Parts: sequence; C-alpha cells; structure tokens
Amino acid sequence: MKTERIQMDHGAGGRASHDLVADTFMPALANPILRELNDSALLNFQDVRLAISTDSYVVDPIFFPGGDIGSLAVHGTVNDLAMRGAQARYLSVGFILEEGLEISDLEKLLTSMGQAAREAGVQIVAADTKVVERGKADRIFINTAGVGIIAPGVDIAGQNAKPGDFVLINGPVGDHGIAVLSTREGLSFQTDIVSDSAPLNGLVSDMLEVSRNIHVLRDPTRGGVATALNEVAKQSRVGIELEEAKLPVRSEVDAACEMLGLDPLYVANEGKVLVVVAPEDADQVLHNMRQHQLGRESCVIGRIVSEHPDRVVLQTGIGGRRIVDMLSGEQLPRIC
Amino acid sequence: MKTERIQMDHGAGGRASHDLVADTFMPALANPILRELNDSALLNFQDVRLAISTDSYVVDPIFFPGGDIGSLAVHGTVNDLAMRGAQARYLSVGFILEEGLEISDLEKLLTSMGQAAREAGVQIVAADTKVVERGKADRIFINTAGVGIIAPGVDIAGQNAKPGDFVLINGPVGDHGIAVLSTREGLSFQTDIVSDSAPLNGLVSDMLEVSRNIHVLRDPTRGGVATALNEVAKQSRVGIELEEAKLPVRSEVDAACEMLGLDPLYVANEGKVLVVVAPEDADQVLHNMRQHQLGRESCVIGRIVSEHPDRVVLQTGIGGRRIVDMLSGEQLPRIC
Repeated sequence: MKTERIQMDHGAGGRASHDLVADTFMPALANPILRELNDSALLNFQDVRLAISTDSYVVDPIFFPGGDIGSLAVHGTVNDLAMRGAQARYLSVGFILEEGLEISDLEKLLTSMGQAAREAGVQIVAADTKVVERGKADRIFINTAGVGIIAPGVDIAGQNAKPGDFVLINGPVGDHGIAVLSTREGLSFQTDIVSDSAPLNGLVSDMLEVSRNIHVLRDPTRGGVATALNEVAKQSRVGIELEEAKLPVRSEVDAACEMLGLDPLYVANEGKVLVVVAPEDADQVLHNMRQHQLGRESCVIGRIVSEHPDRVVLQTGIGGRRIVDMLSGEQLPRIC
Repeated sequence: MKTERIQMDHGAGGRASHDLVADTFMPALANPILRELNDSALLNFQDVRLAISTDSYVVDPIFFPGGDIGSLAVHGTVNDLAMRGAQARYLSVGFILEEGLEISDLEKLLTSMGQAAREAGVQIVAADTKVVERGKADRIFINTAGVGIIAPGVDIAGQNAKPGDFVLINGPVGDHGIAVLSTREGLSFQTDIVSDSAPLNGLVSDMLEVSRNIHVLRDPTRGGVATALNEVAKQSRVGIELEEAKLPVRSEVDAACEMLGLDPLYVANEGKVLVVVAPEDADQVLHNMRQHQLGRESCVIGRIVSEHPDRVVLQTGIGGRRIVDMLSGEQLPRIC
C-alpha cells in the first residue's frame, strides 16, 4: 500500500525503501539492467566490461569521527563498484551547496575528497556545482557516480549465492553508524568509535587474485548486515544462516547500540564487505583477507542454505533461532 | 578574492562559479582530464572511447511549461555527452527527496523521466534514493551521470575552435529560462513560452554524419549563449564575433526579458547547441541541421576570429560593438 507522501523511512534502506523502488521507481524507469538491483550495473562496450554505480550522500553531520561527506562520497561509490568485482577508474561528482556554506568547510571536504580519490586510485573527471537558497538544502549534498572495469572471468552479483557457500565479513560491524550518531546534535554521547569508511577496492582485488569462486560481494551500508543479507537471499532465492556468536561487534558499539535501542545487525558500515564464497575457496579467501589492512579481523559469520529460501535466520548465542528481517521503519536517518 | 561563504551567484554559471571552480575545487580535485573543463570528460578503455558527464538538477519550480525536473535531468546529461560528439548510452540517477514530497508528483516526474530516456535512446541502469527531513531540501533534487560512446575520428572539444570557423545555433534563445521564470512564485506573468528542453543527441549525430569538421559543440544552459561562448573563446584562445541582428530571439522572450531586466544572451537554454564548424562545411551542416525537427530555425550567428583572443564581441543592430562578458552576479537562480 502506498503512502501519499515521502516519509523518512523511505530513505532508510529497509522495507519502505524497497517498496518505494518496487512500486514507484521501477514502473517508470525499469529495464532489464536496472531490475537486477545490484550495487552497480554491468555494461558491455565491445570487449570491455564496465560497471557503473551512483550514490547521493546526505550524511548529517558532514564531519564525523573517521571521515566526512567528501571522503565518504568517494569510498561509497568505489565500494559499490568493487561489489561487482570492478576496479573503480573514474568518478563524476555533483555538488549541491546551500547558500551560506562556509568556504573553509567546503575546502576541507574537497581536500578530503581528493585525498580519498588518490588513495583509492580513481580520478574525478567530471563535476558540477549547484547552489540553492539558505534553508533549501542542508549545507552540502554530494552525488558521485563511478565507472569501473571488470577483469575477464569475474562474475559477481547478488544472484549468484549457492547453498553451501560461506558468508565472510572483513571485520566488526556498526562502527560507521555509531560514529555518525555520536556527533549528531542532541544525541551526543561519549565513544571512541570512528567510522570504518574506507575504499574496499584493494581488498577485493586481492581476493579476486586468489579465487574465482567468489559469488557475491555486498557492502552492508544503510540497513546494515541484516538488510544486505536479506537482499542477497531474495536475489539468489536461497536461505542464509547467521551465527550471532561469530558476528564481530566492538564492545563500545554494542554498548552504544544498547543505550540507543539499536541492533548492530542493522547499523550502517562504510568499510565492510560481505563475501559469499564457494566452500572449497573459503579458507584461502579468508586467509588472504586477513593479510590486508582492511581485513585483519575477517571471519566466517554464516552459510548459504537451501532451506527457508529468501530468509535470513540467526542462531542466537543462547541456542535459539530467529528470523532476521529487513529493516522496517526508520532506524538511522541520513547515515550516509 | 574569496568570499567566506557560498552565495547564490556561485551557482549561476557565470564569473563567480568559474572563480569558485578555479580557486576552491581545482586545487583539491584537479587532474588533467578535469582541468579541460569540457561538458563531459573523454575516457579511453582499450579501443573504446567513452564520454562521461554529470549534472545535478535543482530547478524551481519542479514542473514548468514544456517540461519538469525529471525530463530535464535526462535531457541535460544526454546533451552534455552530445557536446563531445558522444552518443549517450547509459544514465545513472541519484534522487534526494524531501520528506513530505507528494508521491503522485514523484510518479509524474519519474514517468516523464522514463519517457525522456526512451525518446533519447538511453537506459537508466543505476539509481539511488535518499530522503532528508522536511525543510532540509526543496521537494526533489536529481543528479544524473551519463556514459556515452564516441565514434572513431570524432574530436570535438572546447579547445578546438579555429579562426575562420562559423558559429551556428539551432534556434531561438532564452525559452527555457523564461518558461521557468514565468511560473515561479511571486514572479508570475503571462506568456505562451515553453521550455526548449529536448535531447540533442539525434541532431548532433545527424550533423556528424555530414561533417568531420565540427570543432566545438556547446549547449548554452546556465549563463546562456554569452557565457558558453566566453568559455569557448578562453579554451581555444580565440576571439568570437557575434552579430546581434542574427541572434534569434522570440518576440515573447524579448518582451519578458525587457520586463524582467534580463539580456536574452544570458538566459538559459536546454535544447540549444552552439556549433563551431570549419567554413568549408558550414553550409552543409546548416542545411542538415534544418532538416531535423530540433533545428528548423538554425542559423549562423557569428565567426571565430584571431583578433581579441579570449573575448566575445557583439556587433549591435545599430552598428556599434561591445564586449560580451561572462555572466557576473546572479541572474537566474535554480534555472536547471
């Protein structure tokens, strides 16, 4: 059932977002490529396979522990490309500035953006700037779109998970969401947590060197691990079993989540990747991930199963089982 | 000299915009491709030459005579690609929605967007939606980025104008700007003018079939013909002579400009292209443009000269001459 107006939960990445896409966006815009609903689209130009992806960034506040909207806008799109096994090459950037934005803040964000691009090995090749009146935006919104190149033989997509596959992650979850919340006006609390915002293309390309049996990569951003795995379960028509005891969560993140009434499974990450890999390659991939500085704390968190297709089931620490649904309702507005 | 805060004229496409790019964006983000400052960047992937371009759309109001922000967001980016001689193939779209936006309005815009994409022969392959709180945006902002393919042998860029070249345009100027202004709150006036918003890729590809001596294409959007030609003069280090008597302006646009204190030379267009072509091909290209439904009123409006490099000079109707500078100050906020 459609609501009549846009509500905050339409942007939260969970059920309302998915319904809006299915009911409103798809009927008007859909084509076979868009319908796949992957983090980036795969395009063929003669023998060249490219991936293209876009994201707008509206994070509030624009500066947060461990990053800012400038570096986030680079990492987010580089990572969406990496989730197709694509090496990001070029970015376009669109800025929407609110009248009154301090130029010194803009310079800080741009410097951080340029540095993030150099670190990730991408070039910003096209840019656009618009300005709107005071009160018609919130300081700065950034859109990045990216083009990456996919090596021959690589075939990674949300549709490819197979029963028996292992589910890996490259470290603890929830850092980005909690770091942003910790500095949000009216919600300030003490924590040493910094965002995990980072470019994952290096880690992914290292993994691809040791395995051609990586089936799915997904970055658990808005909506967190729970929503990302629900998407994969639905796209691949498989079930996913998660083990709560194996899911890495920093104690400070756990404590902050407890205080705020959040579940770390639904909190956004900006430097994490869920890896669905064939069982025969899981050990090798895990070993390889741990060699990379962004993967030191990599671990197995679950398996793909043929039971309960479309559903993610959590084995809780105390031996129970519960269904982990998509995020419903708005948990963390403007987290990215 | 830098101002300390972003002002509306930083987004107007004129001198303040150019200074902001040169002083603030370029030092942080620049690389050789971005530094060329063309409507789209040219990228090489093996033997494939692609163009990439991006624009954010913040037009106010979002529905206007002859179009809306949805169709505009398709046309604008398709056209920026066409200005490199690239045939647009794929678009990504990023939506920023304000809480409270009517879903029925969103559906109207999306339908219009889908239709514009089909008409232009492009596929929307990647999309993202964010929602911000009421009062933190203005209904809807849209970013599109596009990827197009450039045929072998085509070399069109702002740097390529040569003395002796003719300057053509495909019809009367100022329709888009006046159409948007006519419906703006507090400024309403009677006019039958509708926006010229249209995809120019078909017209451009027709022109490219009859000439490989088209040196520059530029769509005179924000800042109008005056600003676009100033950019070309500076990029190519040439002078440009414009003849006021030859510049086509509808009488209603002329009247509205008079009333509002605007100069049609600075008013935005969304379906016009400035064509700089070698003298030997000018007749053929002009003839060809007039065969296309978007070029029936095409005409020659000026010449490229070696005198007064970097400057655009207008021969006025009464026989005088004046320098046509870039737009300085804010003429028409949020026109695209």
